[in-house]
Amino acid sequence: MNQVPDHQPLFGKVALIGVGLIGSSLARALHRHGLAGEIVGHARTEEGCVRLLELELCDSAHSDPAEAVQDADLVILCVPVSANADLAEAMAPGLKRGAIVSDVGSVKQAVIRDVDPFLPEGVHFIPGHPIAGTEHSGPEAGFAELFENRYVILTPPPGADEEALEKLSRLWQACGSTVEVMDPAHHDKVLAITSHLPHLIAYTIVGTAANLEESERREVVKYSASGFRDFTRIAASDPIMWRDIFLNNREAVLEMLQRFSEDITALQRAIRWGEGETLESLFRHTREIRRGVVELGQAGTFDPREPEKASTAEPIRKED
Amino acid sequence: MNQVPDHQPLFGKVALIGVGLIGSSLARALHRHGLAGEIVGHARTEEGCVRLLELELCDSAHSDPAEAVQDADLVILCVPVSANADLAEAMAPGLKRGAIVSDVGSVKQAVIRDVDPFLPEGVHFIPGHPIAGTEHSGPEAGFAELFENRYVILTPPPGADEEALEKLSRLWQACGSTVEVMDPAHHDKVLAITSHLPHLIAYTIVGTAANLEESERREVVKYSASGFRDFTRIAASDPIMWRDIFLNNREAVLEMLQRFSEDITALQRAIRWGEGETLESLFRHTREIRRGVVELGQAGTFDPREPEKASTAEPIRKED
Repeated sequence: MNQVPDHQPLFGKVALIGVGLIGSSLARALHRHGLAGEIVGHARTEEGCVRLLELELCDSAHSDPAEAVQDADLVILCVPVSANADLAEAMAPGLKRGAIVSDVGSVKQAVIRDVDPFLPEGVHFIPGHPIAGTEHSGPEAGFAELFENRYVILTPPPGADEEALEKLSRLWQACGSTVEVMDPAHHDKVLAITSHLPHLIAYTIVGTAANLEESERREVVKYSASGFRDFTRIAASDPIMWRDIFLNNREAVLEMLQRFSEDITALQRAIRWGEGETLESLFRHTREIRRGVVELGQAGTFDPREPEKASTAEPIRKED
Repeated sequence: MNQVPDHQPLFGKVALIGVGLIGSSLARALHRHGLAGEIVGHARTEEGCVRLLELELCDSAHSDPAEAVQDADLVILCVPVSANADLAEAMAPGLKRGAIVSDVGSVKQAVIRDVDPFLPEGVHFIPGHPIAGTEHSGPEAGFAELFENRYVILTPPPGADEEALEKLSRLWQACGSTVEVMDPAHHDKVLAITSHLPHLIAYTIVGTAANLEESERREVVKYSASGFRDFTRIAASDPIMWRDIFLNNREAVLEMLQRFSEDITALQRAIRWGEGETLESLFRHTREIRRGVVELGQAGTFDPREPEKASTAEPIRKED
């Protein structure tokens, strides 16, 4: 495939269970960096398996999960989180002793709850979550650079095998990521505010716009460059994946949503009563957070001139 | 300055009242396309005026608005909307008969209410709104390409001078924009949903995150690539400008906010009761809206490979 490495790969055989945006990006990154001696893919259907081979994402593909994981040194579940339990059960008989099992799901407590009970003795389970993605889905959407300069959070259970953790960390680092180890419950709380709530809100506002009359809806699309388009991008993310995330991180999402609702009610009141100082003070405060994001190189921008513009100096008033 | 045009410019003398992101971008676009014989800038302070000259944004700069608009054929107010009334009053004595006065504000009914009463007989008022911007502010932030492939909405009052409307349209078209004419009240309603509500929500969620404990706040910034960063970008927009927009488009914003609140309450309930179908159905629906945005070339993307990726085909399930 892409490159033949001149060194021993980190893993002999890697099985990717589900090859969508994340799975296919991982396949390409493993190829590029020579991290796997062999890559096996799993898709639900025969057609899906054929597609993976046509795209040259794996050396072989199997619709039977137990066959896909046969002899694999590393198995990574790359499916919407509600699919994990059934897949873990189905693949368990094929897992070899000493294999590492991981995943890429955006909730971690639920994944541990769903997968761990099915794993046989001697298999090391190290759940993981690469903080990376785009609004596109499917095996065609992946690219090897997706994980570069991004964080990967690993949430090993208590007493997890140190060597397995170390080896999985090295794999993600080789893909360009920074690895962090975190408690699963803490992960779910942090992601509820950084990822799940933003997606929920984006889906909502785009839905609110979709419920306008036809003529207004056309104009919303037309004039979307004024702020709305950023929300449409987020709200174009995979529907199944996101349904599963909300259902599986229910408590943390509902708590953050409650805080958000209180805050927006306060702003609503400030607008109704013309309290300009309340608005301005919040709007200045939020700019600080953006500065932190830019400083960490996690920004992204729509400014056509500079892909990751570093300047967010204190604004000069328009009329100064 | 940038280029000396070999044709007669569209306007002899253009006065920009306020030279921030929009004003400085317009100055650069006017230069580049040879649309003005002379550009005069207005800044509140002498230091501000000096800065405009250092940046080569105008041929001259005045802190007195009446001096700035002296003999101008076109005057464009480029200030936060709450500053319009005072500036209109201050510049009125300097306006020449036949001059066109316009603006770039994100609300149009309030601008008409604030500016029109001060304009002398024989001056043509054609309010305008370029749907373009970045999260950066100030005269350094502008660039000539800002208006390319973007819409500019003009909201001429009943009986407005046709020739003035036509000439102002040609100016924006020459800057690369598509001009649309719209009723001011309708503009304010459309922008409430496409721009004002998205900004309000982005400010709120970033504020919600800012109120977390210090340790959690650091992590929110760190893992912001998971969705949050898009909101921080919007929430880094000019605080004064946005305070004024919310205060001056109060009714339309509150109405859209009410609809949004109802919709998010319904989603909250669906999450609490585990109604996966409700979630999935909304998440599929919103993807359609994104498709419309992409088709109109108004998208923007964070995908590092393709600046304006055109594909948002129906997702392939991750596990297919």
